[in-house]
Amino acid sequence: MTTPKTIALVGKTQASGIEESIRELIVFLQQHGVTVVLETETARTCGIDSLQHLSVAEIGKVANLAIVLGGDGTMLGVARQLAPYPVPLIGINQGRLGFITDIPRERMIPVLTDMLDGKYIAEKRSLLQAIVLRDGSQIFSGVAFNDIVVARGAGAGMVELRVEVDQHFMYNQRSDGLIISTPTGSTAYALSAGGPMLHPSLQGIAMVPIAPHALSNRPIVLPDSSEIVIEIAAGRDMSLNFDMQTFASLMCQDRIVIRRSAHTVTFLHPQDWNYYHTLREKLHWNEYPTVTGALN
Amino acid sequence: MTTPKTIALVGKTQASGIEESIRELIVFLQQHGVTVVLETETARTCGIDSLQHLSVAEIGKVANLAIVLGGDGTMLGVARQLAPYPVPLIGINQGRLGFITDIPRERMIPVLTDMLDGKYIAEKRSLLQAIVLRDGSQIFSGVAFNDIVVARGAGAGMVELRVEVDQHFMYNQRSDGLIISTPTGSTAYALSAGGPMLHPSLQGIAMVPIAPHALSNRPIVLPDSSEIVIEIAAGRDMSLNFDMQTFASLMCQDRIVIRRSAHTVTFLHPQDWNYYHTLREKLHWNEYPTVTGALN
Amino acid sequence: MTTPKTIALVGKTQASGIEESIRELIVFLQQHGVTVVLETETARTCGIDSLQHLSVAEIGKVANLAIVLGGDGTMLGVARQLAPYPVPLIGINQGRLGFITDIPRERMIPVLTDMLDGKYIAEKRSLLQAIVLRDGSQIFSGVAFNDIVVARGAGAGMVELRVEVDQHFMYNQRSDGLIISTPTGSTAYALSAGGPMLHPSLQGIAMVPIAPHALSNRPIVLPDSSEIVIEIAAGRDMSLNFDMQTFASLMCQDRIVIRRSAHTVTFLHPQDWNYYHTLREKLHWNEYPTVTGALN
Amino acid sequence: MTTPKTIALVGKTQASGIEESIRELIVFLQQHGVTVVLETETARTCGIDSLQHLSVAEIGKVANLAIVLGGDGTMLGVARQLAPYPVPLIGINQGRLGFITDIPRERMIPVLTDMLDGKYIAEKRSLLQAIVLRDGSQIFSGVAFNDIVVARGAGAGMVELRVEVDQHFMYNQRSDGLIISTPTGSTAYALSAGGPMLHPSLQGIAMVPIAPHALSNRPIVLPDSSEIVIEIAAGRDMSLNFDMQTFASLMCQDRIVIRRSAHTVTFLHPQDWNYYHTLREKLHWNEYPTVTGALN
Repeated sequence: MTTPKTIALVGKTQASGIEESIRELIVFLQQHGVTVVLETETARTCGIDSLQHLSVAEIGKVANLAIVLGGDGTMLGVARQLAPYPVPLIGINQGRLGFITDIPRERMIPVLTDMLDGKYIAEKRSLLQAIVLRDGSQIFSGVAFNDIVVARGAGAGMVELRVEVDQHFMYNQRSDGLIISTPTGSTAYALSAGGPMLHPSLQGIAMVPIAPHALSNRPIVLPDSSEIVIEIAAGRDMSLNFDMQTFASLMCQDRIVIRRSAHTVTFLHPQDWNYYHTLREKLHWNEYPTVTGALN
Repeated sequence: MTTPKTIALVGKTQASGIEESIRELIVFLQQHGVTVVLETETARTCGIDSLQHLSVAEIGKVANLAIVLGGDGTMLGVARQLAPYPVPLIGINQGRLGFITDIPRERMIPVLTDMLDGKYIAEKRSLLQAIVLRDGSQIFSGVAFNDIVVARGAGAGMVELRVEVDQHFMYNQRSDGLIISTPTGSTAYALSAGGPMLHPSLQGIAMVPIAPHALSNRPIVLPDSSEIVIEIAAGRDMSLNFDMQTFASLMCQDRIVIRRSAHTVTFLHPQDWNYYHTLREKLHWNEYPTVTGALN
Repeated sequence: MTTPKTIALVGKTQASGIEESIRELIVFLQQHGVTVVLETETARTCGIDSLQHLSVAEIGKVANLAIVLGGDGTMLGVARQLAPYPVPLIGINQGRLGFITDIPRERMIPVLTDMLDGKYIAEKRSLLQAIVLRDGSQIFSGVAFNDIVVARGAGAGMVELRVEVDQHFMYNQRSDGLIISTPTGSTAYALSAGGPMLHPSLQGIAMVPIAPHALSNRPIVLPDSSEIVIEIAAGRDMSLNFDMQTFASLMCQDRIVIRRSAHTVTFLHPQDWNYYHTLREKLHWNEYPTVTGALN
Repeated sequence: MTTPKTIALVGKTQASGIEESIRELIVFLQQHGVTVVLETETARTCGIDSLQHLSVAEIGKVANLAIVLGGDGTMLGVARQLAPYPVPLIGINQGRLGFITDIPRERMIPVLTDMLDGKYIAEKRSLLQAIVLRDGSQIFSGVAFNDIVVARGAGAGMVELRVEVDQHFMYNQRSDGLIISTPTGSTAYALSAGGPMLHPSLQGIAMVPIAPHALSNRPIVLPDSSEIVIEIAAGRDMSLNFDMQTFASLMCQDRIVIRRSAHTVTFLHPQDWNYYHTLREKLHWNEYPTVTGALN
């Protein structure tokens, strides 16, 4: 990447200190001869009128790079919206290392200096897309960066899901729901539900049942070329969740068709970035073991 | 037990074949000089007008024994309602062995003949009770035989629960919810969510988080003298579920106080009944191992 | 595949009924104009002198196809030895469906008739290879079809393993050991230790810790292009196990280097074979759920 | 407790800084009019000749209290040896909070001042005992504070264990082994193998299979009045481990009989000690959740 001409800034607008970071970045980037544009909501919260304001979709069309300030959740939302556009993303966290927001706010200026200078690692991440069919007609479609989740209602019993993969019947599953996760999402909700971690470059999709009735309904990892069809055989008050940020109501007999999205998202990391380092930090692998007894 | 004077029959009214079993039992019991009463719904479904019809609560007051025909779910519901009364229960399954409905319909006559003759095992099971406090006032109370569950809504993110045990702060937990289970319930939903099995005579309560955010939030078993207080710190569309059969809506700041119920329920089993036999059957322990490779 | 000219038969020699099946197959194959050769041990056990006897390695050089009679364990052993040779395998089980021995003995004649006629599914499976370095010199090498396992001794405490992937430090793990599994092995030992199932066509390797000290040391799936280096940091009486069939003793400071093998093994399945069908059968997914309570 | 007349000091002799702590404690205790005795090895390592040296067993006979300096492992070993004697224990950790060594070395003087003054919580912990029968004769017996573990050898396949509880057949289990754990041990090895935490005052024993072949072989908690008999049905190079500190070799057909020990151990804790506080610290419950994505 030669120094990008136009860089968009997006901030998690409720976060404290975000405005100061945004203003600092604007100065820094303009000094490097970059045209800076702001996501509309970010601009309004920061009260900055002097720069162009754009929606995320418009950013997709004009920017060469987007820098996101916030946590992984903010990054997720922006990445999902930017997926159709060839705009790479850089994530700056506000104090706590994220899985996908790996540059600490305090070090953003020297790190970005290097990155604008071409010293970075580019990494592609896959996304999932789903459509919901009711009586044969598509009633909903969505994209997820972490996971697509079929979930039961709070006051309802288990759901029963009929699952097919590549047109082969897999099983009828009774459970609280089913998580279909990308490698990126494998360290989020899917991990809590007992799923494995998937390395970001693995071409796989994890299917992780939530509290399944049958003890042998264990997580399974499929090639990411798979087409997964989930039919709601029984259940009430269900919903289909995309990254736990977008939701669609489901009814019995609805069919959900899930595939890898045609789009990918490119993250740019500092040159010393390392996936295992992030895992160690986030999962406390670098600490002394927590369970004790025999080892003391 | 000398032969009970009054026996109530309760059937899962939608089940096929239930009427025939009920009629067969009536004849059998009357031949033994027993007064038979019928649960109202059961009587209506079977179209039997010649015997006294009673609600489950009325059964609690007049019967010396209740015989339940159906699956574990039917038994659960009746047991919960009969808990305040000193009426033991016998469970007859309609074809599939249950954890608590252990007499197969085909063998009910010879087995009951022995049991009426005093040849049985009496086993006490504990229950849980919960009250919900909102702004300091009790807005709900309930009893559970299997479990009391705080559950999140389908289209909502995680809940955050603040848990205290015996007035000691335990943790703030982010998860899909939390299951508080009796030993009886430990082979039901709690097992699906990763909890341990608890022997029915263990004086314990299992606390099993559902898909907890922190990987170290593992199931814990407390003495059944514990008082558990769960405060809803954050979440939407939550409910409190009793045996997944009764539900109460929850709001943030609600406090749920859970204790062992003062009541117990007594089950009568045939003399050759054995808890481990039931586990083996239900969990397929008696089959050849299912995972393969090294052992062939 | 045109009808193979030379087919080798290998049987699990201790199994009862194996001789009869072998003799039936010989007749059947010779009627189809095939030259039949026998694995040496199989020939001896069956007392058949009239056909050529070959070691598995020799079979690799002369046969166009190997038919294995036995369980998955027998198939594993033969597949591992045939891996360097381009000889596809067909697995015939002696009564119980296997993950990789999918043709029941009773149906072998009609099924093989179709398969010799070109009606089959060919499926490639990957293998793993490992070398052990001690003081920089290679002291052992081996190949595995299911898994390569670092295991501690029975009377020893935990091992401490230092794990690197693609020359990046991953973690120091304290545990009973570590399983590195192919997709094929993911339904064997790795599943027992809490690992995910991997679809056979996933290009991945599962790394599954056995009873890890740190609760966040969860299974991880890596791309199968990864190089995994495990250094024994501490422990006693350890061994390195290949498919639990071949073993090497390990010492502290030994380094184990694991990669996908350059070889693959091709299985031939009947045309109606389906991976999910096998999973359903082996894992009892097709049965009524085993945990009960809420659903009755 | 009135101020104890005789207090024994036991230190983990290899630990750095132990000598200084021991000497500081001696001065402190003598100032309080206490007779101080030293465990033999501790005395030798610290080079202290001026006080009486005793074995742990002798300490059991003469001391009114034992103060242990070290980690949980040191405490475990001493507690197991002192179990037959009515000597309560206090545990002082050398820098890292332990589950059962809860007083930090830096605060030991003020905390012990209070405790000698009668301000403490006394807590009883149960132990397990096992005997091994070979051909009907007892060949080994031992006591455990954490757990008794049947474990397979590193270069051996699974073991097959036939388990009986209270003379009822439970199951044949194929696995890497079986952990029988006290509540104290439930946060040690048993937790790593997927077992539940048991509150120290729960009258229960956890039975936790290690990597069991059958996915439905889940942890089970039994009343601590249970007698567990494990027969080695198949396996090689097995051992029986007590707290992973004492080991006995096992052979096929050996029968292991496990019961709650007749002895208990009493721990004294500072008055502000709280079990849940220790759990929070050790299991990082007090930290921000580690899994991320949806919550940011």
